[in-house]
Amino acid sequence: MTDEKPSGEAITKYSDLDVLNYHSSNFPGNGKIEIISKTPVTNARDLTLAYSPGVAISCLAIEKDPKSLYHYTNVGNTVAVISNGTRILGLGDIGMAGYPVMEGKAILFKALANVDAMPFILDTKDPDELIRTAEILAQNFGGINLEDIRKPDCFYIERKLDEKLPIPVFHDDQWGTAIVTLSAAINSVKILGKKFEDLKVVVHGAGASGIAIATMLLGRGVKGSNMQVIDRVGSIYDGRHEDMNPYKQELAEKINPTKAFLKLDDAVEGADLLIGVSSKGMFKERHIKKMATNPMIFALANPVPEILPPEAIKAGAKIIGTGRSDFNNQINNVLGFPAIFRGALDVKATKITMNMKIAAAEAIAGVLTEDELSVDNVITEPTDPRLMPAEAAAVAQAAIKDGVAQRKLSYDEVYQFTKERIEYYKQTAGKIVETRSKKQLYNF
Amino acid sequence: MTDEKPSGEAITKYSDLDVLNYHSSNFPGNGKIEIISKTPVTNARDLTLAYSPGVAISCLAIEKDPKSLYHYTNVGNTVAVISNGTRILGLGDIGMAGYPVMEGKAILFKALANVDAMPFILDTKDPDELIRTAEILAQNFGGINLEDIRKPDCFYIERKLDEKLPIPVFHDDQWGTAIVTLSAAINSVKILGKKFEDLKVVVHGAGASGIAIATMLLGRGVKGSNMQVIDRVGSIYDGRHEDMNPYKQELAEKINPTKAFLKLDDAVEGADLLIGVSSKGMFKERHIKKMATNPMIFALANPVPEILPPEAIKAGAKIIGTGRSDFNNQINNVLGFPAIFRGALDVKATKITMNMKIAAAEAIAGVLTEDELSVDNVITEPTDPRLMPAEAAAVAQAAIKDGVAQRKLSYDEVYQFTKERIEYYKQTAGKIVETRSKKQLYNF
Repeated sequence: MTDEKPSGEAITKYSDLDVLNYHSSNFPGNGKIEIISKTPVTNARDLTLAYSPGVAISCLAIEKDPKSLYHYTNVGNTVAVISNGTRILGLGDIGMAGYPVMEGKAILFKALANVDAMPFILDTKDPDELIRTAEILAQNFGGINLEDIRKPDCFYIERKLDEKLPIPVFHDDQWGTAIVTLSAAINSVKILGKKFEDLKVVVHGAGASGIAIATMLLGRGVKGSNMQVIDRVGSIYDGRHEDMNPYKQELAEKINPTKAFLKLDDAVEGADLLIGVSSKGMFKERHIKKMATNPMIFALANPVPEILPPEAIKAGAKIIGTGRSDFNNQINNVLGFPAIFRGALDVKATKITMNMKIAAAEAIAGVLTEDELSVDNVITEPTDPRLMPAEAAAVAQAAIKDGVAQRKLSYDEVYQFTKERIEYYKQTAGKIVETRSKKQLYNF
Repeated sequence: MTDEKPSGEAITKYSDLDVLNYHSSNFPGNGKIEIISKTPVTNARDLTLAYSPGVAISCLAIEKDPKSLYHYTNVGNTVAVISNGTRILGLGDIGMAGYPVMEGKAILFKALANVDAMPFILDTKDPDELIRTAEILAQNFGGINLEDIRKPDCFYIERKLDEKLPIPVFHDDQWGTAIVTLSAAINSVKILGKKFEDLKVVVHGAGASGIAIATMLLGRGVKGSNMQVIDRVGSIYDGRHEDMNPYKQELAEKINPTKAFLKLDDAVEGADLLIGVSSKGMFKERHIKKMATNPMIFALANPVPEILPPEAIKAGAKIIGTGRSDFNNQINNVLGFPAIFRGALDVKATKITMNMKIAAAEAIAGVLTEDELSVDNVITEPTDPRLMPAEAAAVAQAAIKDGVAQRKLSYDEVYQFTKERIEYYKQTAGKIVETRSKKQLYNF
C-alpha cells in the first residue's frame, strides 16, 4: 500500500446520511448529473447558430456526408448506460430505485475519462423489447454500456446487440469485473513467480461475471484442463444436464475435459487461484488449506466477500483481493469501463473484441512498477493518473489490430488526448463542484 | 426596438462556416452538449459515495419511498427531446442529420431555464413503435418535448403519450409556435385597441402549428364563427371530405359554422388577423388590402415567410411578425418551451394543460411594459431577463389551479428559483465556455 492511499478506515468512514446528502444537495436540482452547453448561448446570434435557422447548415452538412455526424455533434463521445433495473448491485430487481447507480456510472465515465454518458433504466423486462429499444436509440450514441441486467437475459441481450449494432456494446457486470480480475491475476502470478499455462483455477459462481472471468482467463492462457467452474449444482462440464443454459454450455465445452463433477471442497485441492463470484462466507479456512503453495484468492461477493481478508491470510492465503475498498487489492470495475470506452470511442471502434478486453487488463496490470508490486498491492486504484491514458491507448491499438477501428490513431495520440481530456475536465467542469457545494439554497 | 437589441443585420451576419465552426470546435469532443458531474469525483471516498457500494443507500431509500426518486436523482429536472427525424425544420425527413437541432434545443433548455435535456432522434418511423419507446424511456424523465415529427403522426403520438404517461408531453412544433403566436396576438390586439371576441381571423395552413394556433386562439376567446382555417383545398368545415384527418375534423367542429368554403382571396375579406403557417410568398398585396382597418399579419413560414415585412407594410399591414430574427416582431418558439417545462417541472406537473399554455402566452405578452409596446415591438426576445422567471411562475400557478401539480409552490417561489437557477448556470457552467473557446487542441 502506497502512502498516498487513504487507509481503509478513512475510505469507509461514511454514514447513510453522507450518501443521502451526496445525492440530494446539488443545486440546481438533485442527483449527480447535469447537461450543459459547450458553446456560448448568450445572445441572439448564438441562438441562431445553435438552433433555428442557422443550425440547418450543420444538418445539411451531415445529410450530405453522414460520417460527419461525429464531427458536428457530441454523439461520438456519448455512451448510453442501459439497465432495466432487474439486478441492481446485490439488491435484486428494484427497477427505477437503481437509477443512482446509473447516474454514478455516468459521472465516473466523465470524471475519469471524459466520456459523456446518459443513464437509463428502461421500463421493460422483456429482453427482446429491451434489444429493440436499444436498437432504436443506438444511432444517438458512440457506444452502449449494459448494466445490472439479470442473467441469463444479460448474455442474450449483449450477444444480440453486439451482432446487430455498428457500435461497441459492453456488459460491464460481465466484462468489467472479468477484465479487472484478470489484471489482478496477471500481477499476482508475476509476484509469486507462477505461470498462466500451469495455473490451476477454480471459479465459484457461474453467473454473468463468473462465466466472463473464466472466459478471459482461458483467453489469457489458462488451460481448460486446469479449470473448474462450480455453481450451486457442482462442476460444470460438457454433458451436464441440471441447471445449464447456453452460456454455461459454451464454457463447458472449453473446460474440464475429464467431466469431473466436484463440489468446492474437492475442487480446491491443489488450486493456485480461487475466485469467488458467489455469496458471502462461502470460502472457509479448510478450502484454503487444501490449495497449492502460495494460494491466491479473489473473493468478489459484494458487499461481504466469500471470505474476509484477515481470515484468508490466517488460513494461508498469499494474496487475497476483494471488491471492498476497505482492504488491500480492491478488484474494482471502475478501473475498466471508463478507459475501455475512451479508447474505443477515440478510434470509432465498431466492437469491443476479446483482444481489446485483454489489452485493457494488461494495461491495468502494467501501471504498477516492479517496485510498487507486492502481495498487498497487486492492482492500482481508479484515480491513479497513469491508468486511464495507458489503458485507453492500449484498447485503441488492439481495436486497430483487430480491424474494428474506423479511425487510426497512434498509441501516443490516444494516450496524450486522454490525458488532456481528463486534465481539461478537472480544470473546467470539475471545478464547478467547488462552488456548487457551497450553494444549497433549496432542496427538492 | 430597444437599444440593446442587435440590429437585424448584425444577427444574420453569419456564414455557413460560422455555423459549422460553432458545431465542431468544442473541446473535448464535438457538438454542443456535455454531461458533467454535480458532485465531487476526486478521491476513493467520492467513488464510494457516488457508485458501489455507497450508492446502495440511496437506491434503498428510493425503493422504500418511490417518490424520493426526484430527491436523490436528477430525473425531475430532465426532459427528453424526442424526434424521429421525419420533419427537421423545413428540411424534411433527414433522420439523424437533424441531430444538431435536438442538441441545440438541449442547450437552449439549459442556458435559458436550467432544465437538463437529453436529445434523441429515434430510429423508427412507426408511430406506435415511437410511442412504445417513449413509454419505456419515460420513467427517466420529468417531461417529454416532442420535436420535428411529421404530421399527422405528431398529433397521434402526442395524444397517446399524453394519455398514457404521468409526466408532461409537449409537441413544441404545435404548441410552442402557437403559444408565442398567441402572445404576439395578445399584445397586437392591445396596441390596436381590438378585442379577441370581435377578432376576425384567418389561419392559412392546417399542419401541426396551424391547428394548434387556431385551437389556442379559440381558447383565448376568438369566436369559431369568426375563424377560417384554410388548407390547400380551401376552408375547413364540419362535413368536408377532401383531405381531412381526425385533427382537422376536431377543429372543424368548432369553427366556420356556416360551412363557408373559401379560398384565401375571399377569406381575408374584412379579417383583422391573418396568420400564415404555409409556405413562402403565399400572401400578396391584394390579400392585405382586403383586410379590415389596422390589419395584423403573422407570416411564419421559415426561412422565407408568406410575405416579407417591407412588402406587407407597403400593402397596409399595421403589424407584421415573422419567424425571422432579422425583422422586428420575431415569433420565436424559444420564448416558450424552456420556461414552460421549468414551471411544469418545478411543481411536478403531470400534464401541460391548455390553461398552462395560455398562461405561458399571457406571461410572455405581459413582460413588455406599456411604454415598450409598439407596432414594431409586440413581443420580447428570449434573452430578456424578465421573461423566463415570469413565464415559469405563471405556468406553475396554472398547473396548480388545474389540479395537475404534485407539489405546490407560490408564484414568487417559482419566480425566484428560476431566476437563481439561470443566474447560477451563467456563473458556473456557462463560464466554462469562455475557457473552452480558447482550447481547440485537436478536432475529431
